[in-house]
Amino acid sequence: MAKDKKPKRVAPRLPRGFVDREAGDLRAQEAMLATIRRVYESYGFEPVETPVFEFTDALGKFLPDSDRPNEGVFSLQDDDEQWMSLRYDLTAPLARFVAENYEALPKPYRSYRAGYVFRNEKPGPGRFRQFMQFDADIVGAPNVSADAEMAMMMADTMEALGIPRGQYVIRVNNRKVLDGVLEAIGLGGEENAGRRLTVLRAIDKLDKFGVEGVRLLLGEGRKDESGDFTPGAGLSREQIADLLSVLQFTELEFRGVGSNTAAYTLQNSKFMTVSTFAAGVEELVTITSFVESAGYDSKRIYIDPSVVRGLEYYTGPVFEAELLFDVVNEKGQKVQFGSVGGGGRYDGLVSRFMSQPVPATGFSIGVSRLMTALKNLGRLETEERAGPVVVTVMDKTRMADYQAMATRLRSALNADPSAPPVPVEVFQGNPKQFGKQLQYADRRNSPCVVIQGEDEKAAGKVQVKDLALGKELSAEITDNAEWREARAGQELVDEAQMVDAVKAILARQAGTRAR
Amino acid sequence: MAKDKKPKRVAPRLPRGFVDREAGDLRAQEAMLATIRRVYESYGFEPVETPVFEFTDALGKFLPDSDRPNEGVFSLQDDDEQWMSLRYDLTAPLARFVAENYEALPKPYRSYRAGYVFRNEKPGPGRFRQFMQFDADIVGAPNVSADAEMAMMMADTMEALGIPRGQYVIRVNNRKVLDGVLEAIGLGGEENAGRRLTVLRAIDKLDKFGVEGVRLLLGEGRKDESGDFTPGAGLSREQIADLLSVLQFTELEFRGVGSNTAAYTLQNSKFMTVSTFAAGVEELVTITSFVESAGYDSKRIYIDPSVVRGLEYYTGPVFEAELLFDVVNEKGQKVQFGSVGGGGRYDGLVSRFMSQPVPATGFSIGVSRLMTALKNLGRLETEERAGPVVVTVMDKTRMADYQAMATRLRSALNADPSAPPVPVEVFQGNPKQFGKQLQYADRRNSPCVVIQGEDEKAAGKVQVKDLALGKELSAEITDNAEWREARAGQELVDEAQMVDAVKAILARQAGTRAR
Repeated sequence: MAKDKKPKRVAPRLPRGFVDREAGDLRAQEAMLATIRRVYESYGFEPVETPVFEFTDALGKFLPDSDRPNEGVFSLQDDDEQWMSLRYDLTAPLARFVAENYEALPKPYRSYRAGYVFRNEKPGPGRFRQFMQFDADIVGAPNVSADAEMAMMMADTMEALGIPRGQYVIRVNNRKVLDGVLEAIGLGGEENAGRRLTVLRAIDKLDKFGVEGVRLLLGEGRKDESGDFTPGAGLSREQIADLLSVLQFTELEFRGVGSNTAAYTLQNSKFMTVSTFAAGVEELVTITSFVESAGYDSKRIYIDPSVVRGLEYYTGPVFEAELLFDVVNEKGQKVQFGSVGGGGRYDGLVSRFMSQPVPATGFSIGVSRLMTALKNLGRLETEERAGPVVVTVMDKTRMADYQAMATRLRSALNADPSAPPVPVEVFQGNPKQFGKQLQYADRRNSPCVVIQGEDEKAAGKVQVKDLALGKELSAEITDNAEWREARAGQELVDEAQMVDAVKAILARQAGTRAR
Repeated sequence: MAKDKKPKRVAPRLPRGFVDREAGDLRAQEAMLATIRRVYESYGFEPVETPVFEFTDALGKFLPDSDRPNEGVFSLQDDDEQWMSLRYDLTAPLARFVAENYEALPKPYRSYRAGYVFRNEKPGPGRFRQFMQFDADIVGAPNVSADAEMAMMMADTMEALGIPRGQYVIRVNNRKVLDGVLEAIGLGGEENAGRRLTVLRAIDKLDKFGVEGVRLLLGEGRKDESGDFTPGAGLSREQIADLLSVLQFTELEFRGVGSNTAAYTLQNSKFMTVSTFAAGVEELVTITSFVESAGYDSKRIYIDPSVVRGLEYYTGPVFEAELLFDVVNEKGQKVQFGSVGGGGRYDGLVSRFMSQPVPATGFSIGVSRLMTALKNLGRLETEERAGPVVVTVMDKTRMADYQAMATRLRSALNADPSAPPVPVEVFQGNPKQFGKQLQYADRRNSPCVVIQGEDEKAAGKVQVKDLALGKELSAEITDNAEWREARAGQELVDEAQMVDAVKAILARQAGTRAR
């Protein structure tokens, strides 16, 4: 082939914000999802799955921090010119599904689903453009008892995952409380929608900038260390004082250790004359009594009027699952781990499609964030699995024989379908250098290899080499090490004894791991 | 709100070719995937996952039937103007992954992955734009022994899924055989690439149009029943005869029942003087001897020189897993179920990214097709699960009590983490009409409901109602049925006995199901 005809080499790389995931990570995730699924199923939730594409208008635009149309979402035009988008969460597609199948579904409809969602945003550390959420929702549940149940199920989920009590907390608030106070301080009505959003985002920055930072963002604006200025919501000192009195930021000092009084405190607020506010407060009082009588104290679930939640579609109670242990962030600062999920009531989302109101509440776990948290806590199943038994290739003309040996071992070692699979393989790389085959076995964490060269074949024998024992012994041997290592842990057995010899090695190593 | 301000209602619908999936389907799929995973793991394969997006140039264009650029693939431009595409299969992304992580991976690299792939095509019956594939691949395996292993693992997978021997077969061919004969009849070289593609597509239509139809498509062209004319490849009668002699269409009469002689027959072909052809035939002979000595007879794996496989990237052996039982197609005709997956050797795909050759072979299962097949065979786990124990709401002011009863039942019934979860829930819909609560429980396939009204509460009792027994009894009662049905299977117990009473009902029903 002429040199100029050679096809240009393509660079193997992924677009920013997308990642590959390998065996250990996938297995740990699978174990974690199974635990969560078990909790959800014990509460009567059933799986359902929607595709990754939806019509853009069916998804709606509810993402936080997306002012321009289509920002935040991956969209493309179909053949017939209609716009489709990749889902940015699992709630909007669920609303479409329920509306589409309303008559056929039992009401209330309890469902759960884990799946990838997509955000067309600037990726950053721990911030991906494809990530997994695990959601549970009750559609057709009009009362706050359902919201209380959601908060309790979230707490149960944290504990089922091994997060100790005191290390997590579910914070609960109500959009009506915020809406009511904003109305009362003169920010009601369609014409103030933009300012309300600025206020909510300011409150949401409490973790980042502290009470003083929020105060600045509610007022004139805030200059950060680099000198960049973020314009504020322009509230007066009085408006800010009113708002802060409701948010009860001071209570935050007691996060997870105080008693659960926030809802009762709100009952004494001067804003109780505003009907939206009063309705929200009463719901929080009811939730408090539900969770308390179900035995969930304020170390597990408590009312925190400063919880905002970014998504626009919430209409009532909102909740946030927060992990309380400290981690070091990318700037080297010690910070609380923070949110691993949240949710709330979205009574308007299904009825966007329908002529009747359809109340709903649900929550969503950020699977990657939660996995990171469990790794930090040492609660993720990361036990190293034994790799494959490797049948090596001494004579490549006898490949069929080696393959038959592997088949025999595989059948014998996998006879019990309820036990974990025992991998067995024949070496399929280039067999020329035998050392490379042993290196391969070692790299795969292989428990043992089977060897049959010319001499063994002639004698009707095979060599079975225990790689773990080999390593242990070679650690003790110092002189003439190479030769001895090659023989260490190696046993010559009759062909008919091959299966038993391998079984004995696997049993010995399982015993060692157990110790 | 003024009528003209009411937001326009959105229609709840999905773009064509995308579907929602419900609990029964998802659980059956999960069981099926677990079985397949077990087989792959027993052969030493490990999970790996890539994201759904790749750079368009990294995926390459290897789809069948896509003549125009970008046809068949969903693509969009990133912020920085680079084109990204949704993966159309799992092989091209694997090639990118291996090239990107080449040094870190053990070689040969055995991996598997299940995931959704996307085709921007016209959807049809059983043809979706998002569908799942389950792939296994060995990268860094230069010899046909790896291809033979793939074919055997595919056969093992079919049997592990409960498809009886004789109802499936793995057909094996080699691209080199086809390439060699095309070269020999004058269709070699870059300038004939288009015609070669027309020829391959004609051969691929055998199932659809029969031998006579293929003959027409290889020659002048073919007119279908509606009068539409498909232009042919324009081969002469001699060229067609040469080609058909190699394809051994007559052998197809014996599909799955003949002896495995095709590879040996090819050794007598006049085209053995063409080196590509001869190399392909020798590989097929070697594969035949491998599978035979491993005990896989021609009812499970056989050589069929007419197998084409649509994807362009194959370079050597190709295989197709076919199910042999008859089904009725959408036109009401009885046809063989046909392909549920396939694969082959793709030695060029990884080296697109690299300066060195990287041989690889793998196969892909079409998960939805296979599920349809297993449903037809009655081999899919579709056992109906018991629904939730439902705590009903007689007095909505006592919601907290009902929730506490549900919590108590849930903890008691889910104490054993190794047993399947037992769902328990409190009714979260509108509790006004009690009949609707019973209807709900019935619809959820609930084993029993718990009832506590004013009288029971006063007496410290609860009603526990066995819904299955209720149905059995009500079938026998004809007069005054409504009243009696309401009481049938109902038991009044002390509050302290509630858990035991529910346990007894669950045990009775489990016994009935087992019988």
